[in-house]
Amino acid sequence: MSDETSLGPGREFDLVRVMMSRWGDRARGIGDDATVLSVPTGEQLVVSTDASLEDVHFRRAWLAPAEIGWRATAAALSDLAAMAATPLGILIALTLSERWLDDLGELAEGIAESASAAGASIVGGDLTRGEQLAITITVLGSTAAPMRRDGAHPGDILWVTGQLGGPALAIAAWNEGRQPTPEARARFARPVPRIREAQWLARAGASAGIDISDGLGGDAAHLAAASGVRIAIDADALPRAPGADVSTAQRSGEEYELLVTTRSPLDAAAFQREFNLSLTRIGTVEQGDPGVDLLIGGERVASPTGYDHFSP
Amino acid sequence: MSDETSLGPGREFDLVRVMMSRWGDRARGIGDDATVLSVPTGEQLVVSTDASLEDVHFRRAWLAPAEIGWRATAAALSDLAAMAATPLGILIALTLSERWLDDLGELAEGIAESASAAGASIVGGDLTRGEQLAITITVLGSTAAPMRRDGAHPGDILWVTGQLGGPALAIAAWNEGRQPTPEARARFARPVPRIREAQWLARAGASAGIDISDGLGGDAAHLAAASGVRIAIDADALPRAPGADVSTAQRSGEEYELLVTTRSPLDAAAFQREFNLSLTRIGTVEQGDPGVDLLIGGERVASPTGYDHFSP
Repeated sequence: MSDETSLGPGREFDLVRVMMSRWGDRARGIGDDATVLSVPTGEQLVVSTDASLEDVHFRRAWLAPAEIGWRATAAALSDLAAMAATPLGILIALTLSERWLDDLGELAEGIAESASAAGASIVGGDLTRGEQLAITITVLGSTAAPMRRDGAHPGDILWVTGQLGGPALAIAAWNEGRQPTPEARARFARPVPRIREAQWLARAGASAGIDISDGLGGDAAHLAAASGVRIAIDADALPRAPGADVSTAQRSGEEYELLVTTRSPLDAAAFQREFNLSLTRIGTVEQGDPGVDLLIGGERVASPTGYDHFSP
Repeated sequence: MSDETSLGPGREFDLVRVMMSRWGDRARGIGDDATVLSVPTGEQLVVSTDASLEDVHFRRAWLAPAEIGWRATAAALSDLAAMAATPLGILIALTLSERWLDDLGELAEGIAESASAAGASIVGGDLTRGEQLAITITVLGSTAAPMRRDGAHPGDILWVTGQLGGPALAIAAWNEGRQPTPEARARFARPVPRIREAQWLARAGASAGIDISDGLGGDAAHLAAASGVRIAIDADALPRAPGADVSTAQRSGEEYELLVTTRSPLDAAAFQREFNLSLTRIGTVEQGDPGVDLLIGGERVASPTGYDHFSP
């Protein structure tokens, strides 16, 4: 945590010590103004930054502090998965409000668990006092061949990992004053960035890829726009979480599953065996105005395009 | 700004468009889930992240929006200067509250100007709605030989760039309801990361270095702690901003000047000619308990160690 790790006095240092004692050797290289890292020879650096704020991305009543830390970190790491990159490390900019001070250790633990599970060390950060809990994670990775959004071509096949709808079901339950099912809750509280799965898909010939953060409809639209293609999604083929209807499955955001296109069919059974995760063919890439159609009972309907944190 | 730059609908996209139109070709590689960058062969990656929050790091009444953007970016870039690294790019995680929406273009302009001045492109980011304006900048740079905090040895000479005290004078004036002098105000509103100066100092043989963000006393203590040495600062030698006394000069934070140690004397006149900035010998490195002494009229007094955002 740059300056704050040196032996200065003050409460900020005490707070950093709480985190460092949790992290142990899951943190490294912290203590100078900046962190020095090596990018493997022949590979390029892949970077992204992602903020998670209380009452924007989660509510305190919904999650344990360790889950909040895990989720913020997993969300950021998913951007490395979307590029089929291998994680190198993460930097954490943490803004703490007074009422979160006692939860700092648990937050830090969740962050470290999530980073560790993805093979990323904690390599730096910044700690600030503020009005609202904010966890901003910058992820650093590398790859010789990044998977991008703009490589889809007409005739390609569209695939998705896992089952969709769990996070939306969990949020709906909480908003209605109910407890979500354990399965739906886990999909929201402990999402898994599909790091190794993305590398498998890239090796298997993925022409384009994106992670599902805005919802299948929205992210398919991003991929379609970047590639200049039209995407047709077969509603009947969507792999749905238990209890999720088609609308929920295609709107549900923060899934962190992968949406990829390939020129040729994939061995979905081999993928399932390796990762214990489904890989489902859900549509096709077509020529046409960039956008997404949902095919429901043979009929085309324009797909809604996800949600927007700035909308009411 | 990852997802938000694709042609999706919604207000978030409109806000991203405001920024992108300001940035023009000062931004590059934005539009995929993450950004791909090349680190020059034979060099290592240097990274740091730094958050600037309203009412913690600045007040709205003090600065124009473009100055707030400049300052947040310069503060982060200064961590690259502290390592004598060359900037590659920056990522911006911006949390906007409603009352800042109309100032977004100016904030974005200040960020881009500061990045450009340091030779850094804007390579990615994230935009979120929140209760408090927060600008979290992650800086990426590279160097073959990072300047570190831990290389100072007894017998080394201590140097500082520029003049100290301006930011503290500006804050004191505002807190007393006065306008600061233009010189003091500029030092707070438009600090300059000493990127090229640091490279000059590293080439000239700096054994250790740090940027002054917590105040000379505090950052000298960080350097002393990391190097396991005692540092003696000659109060009479301190280069002070007009109107700053010794106490102000050695407490003043967010200076972003450089504090370095060298085994041999430097050519301060050559430095001054090249950068139009003073380089002043202000003390020595000694054996002893890690810490800092201030020599005032030949008498040693323990140095205060800067400020702490978490203290009252």
